[in-house]
Amino acid sequence: MSRLFKKRSHKTGLAPGTLIHIGAQQTEPVVINVLDYTAECLGETTVRCVEDCEPFAKEGTVSWLDVSGLHNLPLIKGLGKLFALHPLVLEDILNTEQRPKQEDHADYLFFVIKMLYENKADHTFVVEQVSFILTREVVISFQENPEDIFDPVRQRIRDPRWRIRKLGTDYLVYALIDVIVDNYFHILENIGEAIEQVEVDIRQSPSKKNHDKIHHLVREVIFLRKYIRPVSAVLEGLQESESTLIKPETKVYFNDVHDHVQQAIEMIDSFRDVLENLENLYLSLINYRLNSTMQLLTVITTIFMPLTFIVGVYGMNFENMPELKWHWGYFAVWGIMLVTALMMFVYFKRRKLL
Amino acid sequence: MSRLFKKRSHKTGLAPGTLIHIGAQQTEPVVINVLDYTAECLGETTVRCVEDCEPFAKEGTVSWLDVSGLHNLPLIKGLGKLFALHPLVLEDILNTEQRPKQEDHADYLFFVIKMLYENKADHTFVVEQVSFILTREVVISFQENPEDIFDPVRQRIRDPRWRIRKLGTDYLVYALIDVIVDNYFHILENIGEAIEQVEVDIRQSPSKKNHDKIHHLVREVIFLRKYIRPVSAVLEGLQESESTLIKPETKVYFNDVHDHVQQAIEMIDSFRDVLENLENLYLSLINYRLNSTMQLLTVITTIFMPLTFIVGVYGMNFENMPELKWHWGYFAVWGIMLVTALMMFVYFKRRKLL
Amino acid sequence: MSRLFKKRSHKTGLAPGTLIHIGAQQTEPVVINVLDYTAECLGETTVRCVEDCEPFAKEGTVSWLDVSGLHNLPLIKGLGKLFALHPLVLEDILNTEQRPKQEDHADYLFFVIKMLYENKADHTFVVEQVSFILTREVVISFQENPEDIFDPVRQRIRDPRWRIRKLGTDYLVYALIDVIVDNYFHILENIGEAIEQVEVDIRQSPSKKNHDKIHHLVREVIFLRKYIRPVSAVLEGLQESESTLIKPETKVYFNDVHDHVQQAIEMIDSFRDVLENLENLYLSLINYRLNSTMQLLTVITTIFMPLTFIVGVYGMNFENMPELKWHWGYFAVWGIMLVTALMMFVYFKRRKLL
Amino acid sequence: MSRLFKKRSHKTGLAPGTLIHIGAQQTEPVVINVLDYTAECLGETTVRCVEDCEPFAKEGTVSWLDVSGLHNLPLIKGLGKLFALHPLVLEDILNTEQRPKQEDHADYLFFVIKMLYENKADHTFVVEQVSFILTREVVISFQENPEDIFDPVRQRIRDPRWRIRKLGTDYLVYALIDVIVDNYFHILENIGEAIEQVEVDIRQSPSKKNHDKIHHLVREVIFLRKYIRPVSAVLEGLQESESTLIKPETKVYFNDVHDHVQQAIEMIDSFRDVLENLENLYLSLINYRLNSTMQLLTVITTIFMPLTFIVGVYGMNFENMPELKWHWGYFAVWGIMLVTALMMFVYFKRRKLL
Amino acid sequence: MSRLFKKRSHKTGLAPGTLIHIGAQQTEPVVINVLDYTAECLGETTVRCVEDCEPFAKEGTVSWLDVSGLHNLPLIKGLGKLFALHPLVLEDILNTEQRPKQEDHADYLFFVIKMLYENKADHTFVVEQVSFILTREVVISFQENPEDIFDPVRQRIRDPRWRIRKLGTDYLVYALIDVIVDNYFHILENIGEAIEQVEVDIRQSPSKKNHDKIHHLVREVIFLRKYIRPVSAVLEGLQESESTLIKPETKVYFNDVHDHVQQAIEMIDSFRDVLENLENLYLSLINYRLNSTMQLLTVITTIFMPLTFIVGVYGMNFENMPELKWHWGYFAVWGIMLVTALMMFVYFKRRKLL
Repeated sequence: MSRLFKKRSHKTGLAPGTLIHIGAQQTEPVVINVLDYTAECLGETTVRCVEDCEPFAKEGTVSWLDVSGLHNLPLIKGLGKLFALHPLVLEDILNTEQRPKQEDHADYLFFVIKMLYENKADHTFVVEQVSFILTREVVISFQENPEDIFDPVRQRIRDPRWRIRKLGTDYLVYALIDVIVDNYFHILENIGEAIEQVEVDIRQSPSKKNHDKIHHLVREVIFLRKYIRPVSAVLEGLQESESTLIKPETKVYFNDVHDHVQQAIEMIDSFRDVLENLENLYLSLINYRLNSTMQLLTVITTIFMPLTFIVGVYGMNFENMPELKWHWGYFAVWGIMLVTALMMFVYFKRRKLL
Repeated sequence: MSRLFKKRSHKTGLAPGTLIHIGAQQTEPVVINVLDYTAECLGETTVRCVEDCEPFAKEGTVSWLDVSGLHNLPLIKGLGKLFALHPLVLEDILNTEQRPKQEDHADYLFFVIKMLYENKADHTFVVEQVSFILTREVVISFQENPEDIFDPVRQRIRDPRWRIRKLGTDYLVYALIDVIVDNYFHILENIGEAIEQVEVDIRQSPSKKNHDKIHHLVREVIFLRKYIRPVSAVLEGLQESESTLIKPETKVYFNDVHDHVQQAIEMIDSFRDVLENLENLYLSLINYRLNSTMQLLTVITTIFMPLTFIVGVYGMNFENMPELKWHWGYFAVWGIMLVTALMMFVYFKRRKLL
Repeated sequence: MSRLFKKRSHKTGLAPGTLIHIGAQQTEPVVINVLDYTAECLGETTVRCVEDCEPFAKEGTVSWLDVSGLHNLPLIKGLGKLFALHPLVLEDILNTEQRPKQEDHADYLFFVIKMLYENKADHTFVVEQVSFILTREVVISFQENPEDIFDPVRQRIRDPRWRIRKLGTDYLVYALIDVIVDNYFHILENIGEAIEQVEVDIRQSPSKKNHDKIHHLVREVIFLRKYIRPVSAVLEGLQESESTLIKPETKVYFNDVHDHVQQAIEMIDSFRDVLENLENLYLSLINYRLNSTMQLLTVITTIFMPLTFIVGVYGMNFENMPELKWHWGYFAVWGIMLVTALMMFVYFKRRKLL
Repeated sequence: MSRLFKKRSHKTGLAPGTLIHIGAQQTEPVVINVLDYTAECLGETTVRCVEDCEPFAKEGTVSWLDVSGLHNLPLIKGLGKLFALHPLVLEDILNTEQRPKQEDHADYLFFVIKMLYENKADHTFVVEQVSFILTREVVISFQENPEDIFDPVRQRIRDPRWRIRKLGTDYLVYALIDVIVDNYFHILENIGEAIEQVEVDIRQSPSKKNHDKIHHLVREVIFLRKYIRPVSAVLEGLQESESTLIKPETKVYFNDVHDHVQQAIEMIDSFRDVLENLENLYLSLINYRLNSTMQLLTVITTIFMPLTFIVGVYGMNFENMPELKWHWGYFAVWGIMLVTALMMFVYFKRRKLL
Repeated sequence: MSRLFKKRSHKTGLAPGTLIHIGAQQTEPVVINVLDYTAECLGETTVRCVEDCEPFAKEGTVSWLDVSGLHNLPLIKGLGKLFALHPLVLEDILNTEQRPKQEDHADYLFFVIKMLYENKADHTFVVEQVSFILTREVVISFQENPEDIFDPVRQRIRDPRWRIRKLGTDYLVYALIDVIVDNYFHILENIGEAIEQVEVDIRQSPSKKNHDKIHHLVREVIFLRKYIRPVSAVLEGLQESESTLIKPETKVYFNDVHDHVQQAIEMIDSFRDVLENLENLYLSLINYRLNSTMQLLTVITTIFMPLTFIVGVYGMNFENMPELKWHWGYFAVWGIMLVTALMMFVYFKRRKLL
C-alpha cells in the first residue's frame, strides 16, 4: 500500500522556482529517449545532454523526448532554457508530489498526471508522476523511473501504418494519456476482484484477518480517488482551452479519454459504497456470532445452575433430612432433574435460542 | 446480482479506435432487423450484410436498423463506413462497458444507454448496453443479445394508426428510450416490493439470512444508481443540444422522459435512505435480543448463585455445626432459600429484567 | 405509513400520450365543480360532461373547474381537446405517481403538486396528487378523490369582499397552492410533536416499541422530503418564467409561498438531524443498560464464586482435614467469608460497579 | 432547550395577507420607542398610536421606530398603511416563525433575522425574531418582547461623537444587525465552553448523564445552524441588491458583518464535527468499560470454576476413593489448587486480561 | 491541541471600527522591522513610531514593514492614518480571530491568513493570524508574536542575486504567503506520520490510550481544515481580482501557491477518510477482543458446569445410592468426566471457538 505522502518539507522556505528534486533518489544516469517522426520517416535515439536535443526543437517533425529520471538537475534546467519553460513549471516537474493539473503557457501546454501500474512482485500498485510539455513540434515527458507503460505507444509509432504517425504532437500526448487512463482500469479491476473475493472470505469467516482486507481496500480506494479525481478537471480544462496547440479534430479524442476518467471515478465511488456495505456485513456477522456465543453460554448456565443447586441440596449434612432415607429418593431426584432439563431444553428450542 | 464490472483490461494499450468487442462472446450470426416506414407504407426485412443496408440510407423513409449482436466486427465496420461514423464511436459501440453518454457529431447523434430488464428465470435484473445512431433518415440500435424490450415499439410501428408512423427518426429514438426508462420503473418496483418484504421478515426474525437480504438490496441499489444517474445527463444534454436532428416538437417528449428519469433517481435515493433505516432497525433488534439474552443469564445466575452457596454451606463437614443437629434445620434452610429467591424475583420484576 | 410507491409498471411499453389512469380505482361518477366569478358576480355549478364546460372557456370571468376523480377518461380527453392540452400533459394528469413539476406550454401553464393532509381516522398522512392547468380565463384542478383541503379558498371566493374576487386566475392558482403548502406545516407540526414525545418515551424506557417509533418517523420524514423538496423547484421555475400568465404583482405572492416551502424543507432537514440524534440516544441508552446488566452479573459472580469455593473446600471428605475438627472452625469460615464478601463489596463500590 | 417549532397551523387556510399574530401571547401594551436624530440633534420619545408616528416619516432626520410587541394588530396595520407596506410583509412580521429573509420592495427593504441571547436565569438561549423595515428616512424594528440587545446602539446614538449620528438609516440597520451577529458569538462561545467541559466530564465518567450533555449540545447546534445559516443568504442578497437605499460606502460594513456570519457558520460546523468526535469517544469509552467488566468476569470464572470442580470431586461420597485416605491428601489438593490458580493468574497477566 | 476558539465576546456591542485588540495580551514593546530595497540597494532598520515609517511610503523602493505585536493601539492607528486604511480593516487586523479573507480597497489589498507552525517544545502546532496590506510601494505585515517563519524570505531579500530584489510588492506578498503555505505541509506531514504511527500502535494494542490518539488527530484535522480551507478562496479571489496591484506576471506565482493550497486541502480530506477508517479498525479490533473474551468464558463455563454437576451428584447423601458402593464407581466417574470434557473440547475446536 502506498504511504500517505512523500516528504516535501525540506523544500519549505526555498525561493519559488528553486529547482530541487523531491522524490526517491536515483543514481542511474538520466537518459532522454527520443522518437522523431513524420508520416514517412522515423528516428530513434538516446541522448544524454541538452545540446543533443536542440535539433528536435526545429519545425517539421514530431519529436517525443522521453526523460527518464529527474535527479540530473543541469539537464532539466537545460531543457527548461531550450524550450523557454517558466521556472515554476520546472519546479513542478521536479516535485513528484504535485497534484494532477494542466496549465496553458501560450507557447506550450503543461500537464501533470499520475501514472498507476501494478507492481508484479507484490501485487500492490505503484504511483508515479508523469509531466508533459506539449509544443507544436515537441512532446517532452518527464518521469522518475525508467520503467513505464508507454510501450504500446512506442510500438504504434514504429509502425508507419498507424494513424499516430500522420498526426501531430497533440495526438501523441492524447495517446500517452490514453494509455495511462487505460491502466487505471487495470488497477480498478484488480481492486474490484479483491472486493468480490473479500466478500466471499468474510462470509466464510468474519475474522480479524478478513476485516483487515476490507481496511486495506478502503485505504487503497481513498488513494485512488485522490490520484484519479483531479485528472477529470485536467481534461475538462483542456476541452475548454482556447489554445491552438490542440487541434479541433483531436479534441474528440480528449473527450473520449475524459469519458473514461469519469467512468473510473464512478467505479471508485461504487467501490466505496460497496466497501461500506461490506463493513456493515462484517459488523453484522461479528454481532451475530457474539449473539450465538452468548446464547450458548446462557443456555448452558440456565440448564446446569438449577441442577447443580438440586444436587447441592441433597449434599447437605442435616441430621434430619427425610428424603435422604427414602429408598427411591436418589432416583426421584434424578427424575426431577431430567424433567427440569428437558423442559428447559424445549423452552429454548421454542425461543430459537438453541 | 450483477458483478462489479466486466473485464476490459485486455484492451489496455490498443490504439484508440481499434475495434475490439468487449463483452460476453456470442456465436450466433449477427442479424439486422430493419423496419422501414412512412406514414403510408411499411417494410420489414432481416439483412445480414452491410450492402443490403445501403438502400435504407436513402432519403424519404424512416428506417430502424436493429443490430442484434456485436461480435461480427466486419459488419459493424461496414456500417461505420456506410454512415461515416467516427472510429471512436464504433469503438464505444463495441465496448459494452461504456457509461451512458450522448455525443453530437453534426451529421448524426450518438447515444449510449443501459437497458435493464428482469431475468424471469431467477428474478435478478439484467443490464445490457444499447447504443443508438440517429441520422435524419435512419436510426441504428446496437445491442449484444437478440432479446430486447422493444416489442411494444415494433407493434406500434406496424399499426399505421399510431402517431409514430407519421413522425421522424427523432420520435423513433424517443420511443425506444421511453421504453427503456419505463422498464427502469419495473425493476424499481420489484426492488421496492423486496424492501417492504424484508422489513416484515426482519421484524419476525432478525436473522443472518434476513440481514443478507438487506445487504443484497443495498448492493443492487448502488448498481442501479450507477446505471441510471448518467442517463439524466444524457437527456439534459439532448435538451440543450442545438442539433437540428431533434425537432422542437419532439423535444417536449424528451423532456417528459427526462422527468421520468429524475423520478427514478429520486426513488433510488429514497430506497437508499429506507435501506439505511432498515440496517439501523436490524442492528437495534439484534441489540435488543443480546440484551434479553444477557438479562436472562444475569437473572438465572443471580438467583441460583446465592442458593448454591447456601446449600454448599450446609454440605461442609465440620464436626461442630450446631444447625445440622437442629430438628427443623433442613426445613428452615428451605424456607430461607425460598424467601431469598422470591425477593430476587420481585426485585427483577420491578426493574423489568424479567 | 404510505407505501413506497404505487404500481405503474402496467403502463410500460404503451405509446407516449396513451391515456391510462394510474392510481386507485374509483367507481363514483366524476363531477366538475365550477366556480365562475368576477369582482361583482359569482356562479357555482356542478357539471358532468365536457360540453357544459365550454361556456367557461370564454373570456371575461375567472373560472375554476375542479375535477374530482380521474377514472372518467372520455371526460379528461374532452377537456384536453377543449383547452388544446398536449397529450403528454393529459398523460401526466392521469398518472398520479408524477413528481411535482411545472411546465410552460405558452398558452397555459401546467403544475403537478402533492397535497398532504391528515387522515383523521388513524392519524397518518394522506398523499394525493393535484394537477393545475392555468390559462388566462380558467384554472382547472385535477385530483383523484372528492375530498380536498380547498374549502377555505371556496369560502373566500364566495365572499365578494375578499381580494381574490378582484384578481385573476394566477392569484387563484396561488391561493390553491398556498393552502396546500400551509397544510404541509400541519403535517410537519404533527411529526415534530411525535418526535418530542418519542424522546420522552425513549428516556423512560428504551424499548423495542419506542425504537420502532423512531423508525417510523424516519420513514415518514424520508417520504415528506421526497414530496416537498421538488415543490421548491416548481415555484422557483415559476418565478423565473417569462410567461405573461403570471402577472408581476402576483409574483410577490408566489415568492412568499416559495419562502414557506423553503422553511418546510429546512424543518424536514432539522427533523432528520434530530431523529439521527435520537437514534444515537437510543443506542447509548441500550448500551448503558447492557453495561449495567453485565456489571450486576459480574458483581454477583465475583462475590459468590469464591464463597462457593470455600464452602466446597470444607465439603471434601478427606479423613485428615484438621480444620474440620477445630471447635470454632465452622464459625471461623463464616468469618472469613463475611470479610471476603465485604472487601469485594467495598472494592466494587469504589470502582463504581455497584 | 428550544422547542422544535411554534404552532402555526391555526393559520392554515386563511387568506394570504390576513394579519394574525403567531407567537406567545402578550398582554402588556405595545409601545414604540422612537429615536429621531441628525448629526446635531436627538429626540427620544415613546408613542402608543400610529398617528404620533407620522411626523417621523417626514424627510430630514433619521428615525428609529422600535416596536416592542406584536399583539396590537391595529397598531401594526396602521404602521403598514402609513409606510405603504405590502400586506404579505405585515403578515410576515406578525408570524414569528419566519425564516431569516430579505426582500426588496423598491421603496423599502424588509429583513427578518433571528436574535439570539442568553437567558441569564437558566443559561439556555432565547430565540426571538426581529423584522426591519428600512426606508430612506425611517428604520422600523419589530420584536415580540420589550427586552432586547440593542442598548449599545442606543448608547452610541445618544452620544453625538459617534459616527452613527452622521450616517443614514442604512448604517443604523447595519449597526442593529451587527449587534445581533455579535451576540451569536456570545452564544457560540458558551456552547464551545460547554463542549470542552463535556469532554473533560466524559473522560472522568462515561455516564448516562454526561452522554445526555452531548445529546443536548448536538440538539442546540442543530437549531443554531437552522437560525444562523439563512442569515448569510440575507446579507449576500443585500450585497448584490441594486437598491439605492443602501449606499455604496455602507456596503463595506454589511460585507464585514457577512464575514462574521460566515465565521459563525464555520464555528457551528466545527462544533458538529467535534461533537460527532465526542460521540465516538463516548462509545469507545463505554465499549472499553464493557470489555473490562467482561474480562473481570471471565478471569474470576476461569480461575474459580476449575477449583470448585476439584473440591467437588473430593466431596463425592464413593466408598472407594483412595485419595481420601491418604494422610497428606487434603494438603496435596490445596497444593494442586494453588498451582492451578497461579498458572491461570500468570496466563491472564501475560494476555493482559488482568 | 488548540482550543475551540478565543474569547471575543467582550467586543459585543462596540461600535464597528472600534479598535480593540482581541488575542493574548503582550507586554513587550511593539517594533516594526523595515526592509527597504530596490534591485541595487537594501536598507534594514527597526522603528518604533509611525513618524519613522513615513519615508517608506514614498515611491521608488519596495518596503516591507513587519509589525510584530498588536497591543500598541496608537501605533496601529497611526499606520492606519498614514496609509489611509479603512477603520474596519484596522479592526480586522486587531481581531486575531478573523477567518482568512481578502479585500480589494482600490488603493490597497488586504489579506488575512493563518500561519501554522510547530511548537518545538511539545510538538503541537501553533496558529497565528497574519494580516497583509499591499500597496504599490509598501507591504505591511501584522502578527501578534515576534517569532515567525519569514526568515527564508528575509535571507533572499538580503542577497541581491535573488529574483525577489528585482520584483515589486506583489511578488513580496506572494513570497510571504508561499512560505506560510509551505509550512502547512510541514504540519500536515507531522500529522500524516502520527496517523501512520497510530495505526501501528492500534494494531498492537487497541487500548483506550491509542484510541485517544485517533481522537486527538481527528480534532486536529478538523481545525486544520477550518484554517486552511478559506485560504483557497482568498487566493482564488486574488486570481480573479482586477486590481492592478497584482501584475499579470505575478499571477502565475499566486496560481502556483493556490495549487499548493488545493493539494493541502486534498491531503486533509484524505486524512479524514483515513482516520474514519482507523476508527472502524479500532472498533473492529475491540469487538474482536470482546468476542474472544466471551468465547473463552463460554468455553470454560460449558466444560466445567457439567463436570461440577456430576461431582455434585455423587456428593449427595442419599442412603440408597448404589453407585457409591461400586468398587470402581469413583474411577468410572472420572472416566465419564474426562470423556465429556474431551468431547466438548473437540466440539469447540471444530467450531473454532478455541
